[in-house]
Amino acid sequence: MTRIRAGILGATGTVGQRLIQVLDDHPWFEVAALAASDHSAGKPYGEAAHWQLEAPLPERLAGLRVDACRPGLDCDFVLSGLPSAIAAEVEIEFARAGYPVVSNASTHRMDGDVPLIVPEVNAAHVEAVEAQRRRIGGRGFVVTNPNCSVIGLVIPLAAIDRAFGLEAVHVVTMQALSGAGYPGVASLDINDNVLPDIGGGEEAAKIESEPLKILGRWTGDRFDDRAFPISAMTHRVDVRDGHLEACSVTLKTPASPDAVEESLRGFTSDIDALDLPSAPRPAILVEGRADRPQPRLDRDRSGGMAVTVGPVSRCPVLGFRFRVLSHNTLRGAAGAALLNAELLYRRGWIG
Amino acid sequence: MTRIRAGILGATGTVGQRLIQVLDDHPWFEVAALAASDHSAGKPYGEAAHWQLEAPLPERLAGLRVDACRPGLDCDFVLSGLPSAIAAEVEIEFARAGYPVVSNASTHRMDGDVPLIVPEVNAAHVEAVEAQRRRIGGRGFVVTNPNCSVIGLVIPLAAIDRAFGLEAVHVVTMQALSGAGYPGVASLDINDNVLPDIGGGEEAAKIESEPLKILGRWTGDRFDDRAFPISAMTHRVDVRDGHLEACSVTLKTPASPDAVEESLRGFTSDIDALDLPSAPRPAILVEGRADRPQPRLDRDRSGGMAVTVGPVSRCPVLGFRFRVLSHNTLRGAAGAALLNAELLYRRGWIG
Amino acid sequence: MTRIRAGILGATGTVGQRLIQVLDDHPWFEVAALAASDHSAGKPYGEAAHWQLEAPLPERLAGLRVDACRPGLDCDFVLSGLPSAIAAEVEIEFARAGYPVVSNASTHRMDGDVPLIVPEVNAAHVEAVEAQRRRIGGRGFVVTNPNCSVIGLVIPLAAIDRAFGLEAVHVVTMQALSGAGYPGVASLDINDNVLPDIGGGEEAAKIESEPLKILGRWTGDRFDDRAFPISAMTHRVDVRDGHLEACSVTLKTPASPDAVEESLRGFTSDIDALDLPSAPRPAILVEGRADRPQPRLDRDRSGGMAVTVGPVSRCPVLGFRFRVLSHNTLRGAAGAALLNAELLYRRGWIG
Amino acid sequence: MTRIRAGILGATGTVGQRLIQVLDDHPWFEVAALAASDHSAGKPYGEAAHWQLEAPLPERLAGLRVDACRPGLDCDFVLSGLPSAIAAEVEIEFARAGYPVVSNASTHRMDGDVPLIVPEVNAAHVEAVEAQRRRIGGRGFVVTNPNCSVIGLVIPLAAIDRAFGLEAVHVVTMQALSGAGYPGVASLDINDNVLPDIGGGEEAAKIESEPLKILGRWTGDRFDDRAFPISAMTHRVDVRDGHLEACSVTLKTPASPDAVEESLRGFTSDIDALDLPSAPRPAILVEGRADRPQPRLDRDRSGGMAVTVGPVSRCPVLGFRFRVLSHNTLRGAAGAALLNAELLYRRGWIG
Repeated sequence: MTRIRAGILGATGTVGQRLIQVLDDHPWFEVAALAASDHSAGKPYGEAAHWQLEAPLPERLAGLRVDACRPGLDCDFVLSGLPSAIAAEVEIEFARAGYPVVSNASTHRMDGDVPLIVPEVNAAHVEAVEAQRRRIGGRGFVVTNPNCSVIGLVIPLAAIDRAFGLEAVHVVTMQALSGAGYPGVASLDINDNVLPDIGGGEEAAKIESEPLKILGRWTGDRFDDRAFPISAMTHRVDVRDGHLEACSVTLKTPASPDAVEESLRGFTSDIDALDLPSAPRPAILVEGRADRPQPRLDRDRSGGMAVTVGPVSRCPVLGFRFRVLSHNTLRGAAGAALLNAELLYRRGWIG
Repeated sequence: MTRIRAGILGATGTVGQRLIQVLDDHPWFEVAALAASDHSAGKPYGEAAHWQLEAPLPERLAGLRVDACRPGLDCDFVLSGLPSAIAAEVEIEFARAGYPVVSNASTHRMDGDVPLIVPEVNAAHVEAVEAQRRRIGGRGFVVTNPNCSVIGLVIPLAAIDRAFGLEAVHVVTMQALSGAGYPGVASLDINDNVLPDIGGGEEAAKIESEPLKILGRWTGDRFDDRAFPISAMTHRVDVRDGHLEACSVTLKTPASPDAVEESLRGFTSDIDALDLPSAPRPAILVEGRADRPQPRLDRDRSGGMAVTVGPVSRCPVLGFRFRVLSHNTLRGAAGAALLNAELLYRRGWIG
Repeated sequence: MTRIRAGILGATGTVGQRLIQVLDDHPWFEVAALAASDHSAGKPYGEAAHWQLEAPLPERLAGLRVDACRPGLDCDFVLSGLPSAIAAEVEIEFARAGYPVVSNASTHRMDGDVPLIVPEVNAAHVEAVEAQRRRIGGRGFVVTNPNCSVIGLVIPLAAIDRAFGLEAVHVVTMQALSGAGYPGVASLDINDNVLPDIGGGEEAAKIESEPLKILGRWTGDRFDDRAFPISAMTHRVDVRDGHLEACSVTLKTPASPDAVEESLRGFTSDIDALDLPSAPRPAILVEGRADRPQPRLDRDRSGGMAVTVGPVSRCPVLGFRFRVLSHNTLRGAAGAALLNAELLYRRGWIG
Repeated sequence: MTRIRAGILGATGTVGQRLIQVLDDHPWFEVAALAASDHSAGKPYGEAAHWQLEAPLPERLAGLRVDACRPGLDCDFVLSGLPSAIAAEVEIEFARAGYPVVSNASTHRMDGDVPLIVPEVNAAHVEAVEAQRRRIGGRGFVVTNPNCSVIGLVIPLAAIDRAFGLEAVHVVTMQALSGAGYPGVASLDINDNVLPDIGGGEEAAKIESEPLKILGRWTGDRFDDRAFPISAMTHRVDVRDGHLEACSVTLKTPASPDAVEESLRGFTSDIDALDLPSAPRPAILVEGRADRPQPRLDRDRSGGMAVTVGPVSRCPVLGFRFRVLSHNTLRGAAGAALLNAELLYRRGWIG
């Protein structure tokens, strides 16, 4: 079988490296092009990138020449790990030039005709691409995945919402270093410390808005977002990978801790039938021990693609509470984009 | 001036060491006796203790012989840094034998006639000592300070409660290693990790109950506790000292973020007039930057005795939110006990 | 094919857990018995052990009943991850009872008829087992692997010694937390710190003596150890796994940095022909970059069984210098014991 | 008494902040000017600097306007914490303009007429300033202090050299994060890791050369450096402050561990009589416990200005071995420069 050729935008960054890792030995896709800043363009990738992963850089890619981030890449679609500021224009250029763009950048997530997709939750949002194509003009389009703190949260929320209806969500995050990219957080800032308010409030703003779009629906010409309140307080901790979130929820209908756990354990989705290579089964792992999930012990479960949820208990203030953990650069970024690409391929939007 | 002679129970532990540190050069008190487990008794303190503080062990105390934790200590009162299981009996023995016992242990905190005191908040609770003396029979008594996560929380809550009335409190903690004592948390557990649910739920239970006693009142024959709901989710992070807590509150009367901050900035207390040597002035420091407080940068302010609160903002779910930070073994343990001892001395209960 | 049945002594400890991990899906061996302290005996393993590895505990073993560490285990040989104090008697008991004992404990390493084996270096030492059997009386025997800091050092030393002759070795170690077992190093001791002199000098003593036995030869009735001086200074650093060692050597014959590197790159051994499942090929990886090896990036190479050596340069004082890194609980403990077991099986001493 | 007015070049950096800290409440000097990059110039210091120290920024300085690094600063001398590349020209400009420049930068350290001073060791080198003034033309001059890893090493070496004569020195360093400045080391690089070969070999090169100049003598028209070999291997560890070094030495005359320790304990210097405010007394602290010195426990001794040396033992390869520890941004940088300034003031070269 001929593999679909993927290009990676922002290939030298933290997310770009993870994209290379998750595409290694992929059954459908192969890395055909690596694009990065003009500073890196022209160099062999092994030289341009400061490779940081324990998994070694595949030798074939070490020798691949890095391209600039401009249309003309020899590939069937692109995965974008670009910084948001740069993604704004570059991704649209690629879409206009006819490329499907599967992006991890935040820039276009909340645009009125750009799908913000977590396949297990809102695969149907991909239909918005039709409207987007009309706007942009051409065959290309942009599909996005949520912020790394949102993915781990919104999958359990979707399960609970489906069963009991969400009325309010309160979340406090303890996020890993890799979420800030490289060089990212200075060691002098985080050693023996915790840093509140990631991104000057922008991280919290994403957590408070993106789930409302994801849990909403595409009406055929616009997104009908949900409207319940979400409160997010964010923190950076001295952990390499894995975002831990302490979550409390208020539900519309009566429930019990056991019933809420059951809704998490029983969570299934339309995409189960699609057999996507990167889809974890189940998508949600429920831990019975109160001292779990922990970043180090749970982030790599199901290849870093599962969301682990701790036991559910009553919250004296809001109703129910539990912790969620997901790998921020796998399930929360590179793996999320790849899963979106797999969905698009299966549904005929790529390839 | 003759100094009041203090004995330290549990002198070799983490809290015991901090007690020695805060009593060094104290204007009123001097360390006269160091007591610890039978295993340590008889040895010079410098040999019995695995000294862990950057501040050097005062030479005079290094040579002091450690006593067993039994009445007979040659001192005017005792400060107890005993583990709770041991404190249960030992502290009562000392009280019966006539010693004022100023304890950091959790055992007797919620007892019906034992004051649980934060001087800035509920100094009047000390009156319960009369009832306690009648029960125990004798001149001695036990006075306690709250759990290390409670102190940093309850001082700002008291300020806000006074101004607007508390209706509900939701708190998520990120707590330091020293809170677990020594050897405490294994490095293999916390390196590159966060540990949820400290103490198998006991830490959260203390946070959900102790503030209700502290913010309540002593009626003359019993404590009349407050009854609003508190939700606490606890976590251990790889930080040496300083508990950070993300807090949301619902208030009874309308307020604004500025007004809530004003209530914190303007917080004063009856004990300001007593001029206690360890009392921070002000008790609450309000930080204007959203990325503060941070454990490393803020834990040592005012000698580790101040509580630092970050900017107050609206919480979409509960009303208002902010972060608090306090030094868990100074303001949260040794300093707390010492401040209680100073209060008792000024009021004539010690010495 | 019927698998050889392995028993694990000290199965709940840090090394025991790694033994379970490396035996998972082993082509020749299967875990048939798990033995630990009397405190654990009788419980299902999943309950008795505080499982600390990212790799999940195989479900079959979670339910296996833990045995006491006494002969009678239903298995063909035992792998021992026992603490040295306990290993002293227990391992000899098992050997007397007829079990081949493949041990990671230090107790018997320097005994006059106990092989201390690194298969790539001194597989021939296994012949000492004959003499040992005569002494103990019976079919069983004890074979040991070196200290975790010695293995990573002695393989490169063997390569260099073979080519140029060693005259003196100076090594300074920076060792990982897992080397101290669990709970091991207290987080309060190592956070923001380095701890010199591991084990009160015992670690250094092993590094200064064990290589002399390994690089020596078995004469048929005794070990003829080498006699060059080794100086070791040891340190614990805040790293989970992977011992890094800064090494300087004086050689007998003239050499150049390139020639020394060549001796490392060209290192082969008799066991290459045996095709042992856990043997890394090559045994030594030479890194060209001066900022390598690094614990996090290099410890897991070749399944954690390779030794990574950085570039060789001239040492102004001793001749040549370089750094070595190996995974202390894989190559340095569990993997080392397993590799010895594989050697023994291939040579007919087990099974 | 009128205080001498100090200007700080590179005031916003890691060393600059420490300079401000050590000058706070100084009996002779006061901070009169703060200079930094053009980017910072014109802003109030509190805004221009990302203050990282636990000790709060003195309020008076928070409001001081930052100047550009050009002659014209209103002060009696300057302390330079400039990066080396910038120091090259700027410091000479200031010297030409008549300012005494007391520099921590590496640029001019090895220049033929620039004193590289550790007051306890080679205060007499300051005489080279006369020659330097002739070359530069004018009243100003540059005096430097050594690299942060050299200071902690060279003071004990001086003591030993004086008693027994040094023939060779071998050192392996474990250096703190603050030595790399800010933002410096990325947390993703150092978390759960050790980084070899600081500065691409430049750090080692300084350690191998600077002590030879410091331990040499000024002949009246040139420096007569020592010539024994020094070998240095450098490493960065996840520690905030405090460089730990494992050191072995070969001596010219016979000695014993006790005698070597005695030479360290008995170390005195000409400057003891000068009563310099920042001079630690004694300059060398000798620890009896083999597990000391440790960065966290020993870096702040004598206000961070003492060098702590562990017990001396025999090195089987080189003769004797021991560990040294010093605070890299106090004794190793800001405090070193300040002590040089105090020496210059006392000797009449400043003020």
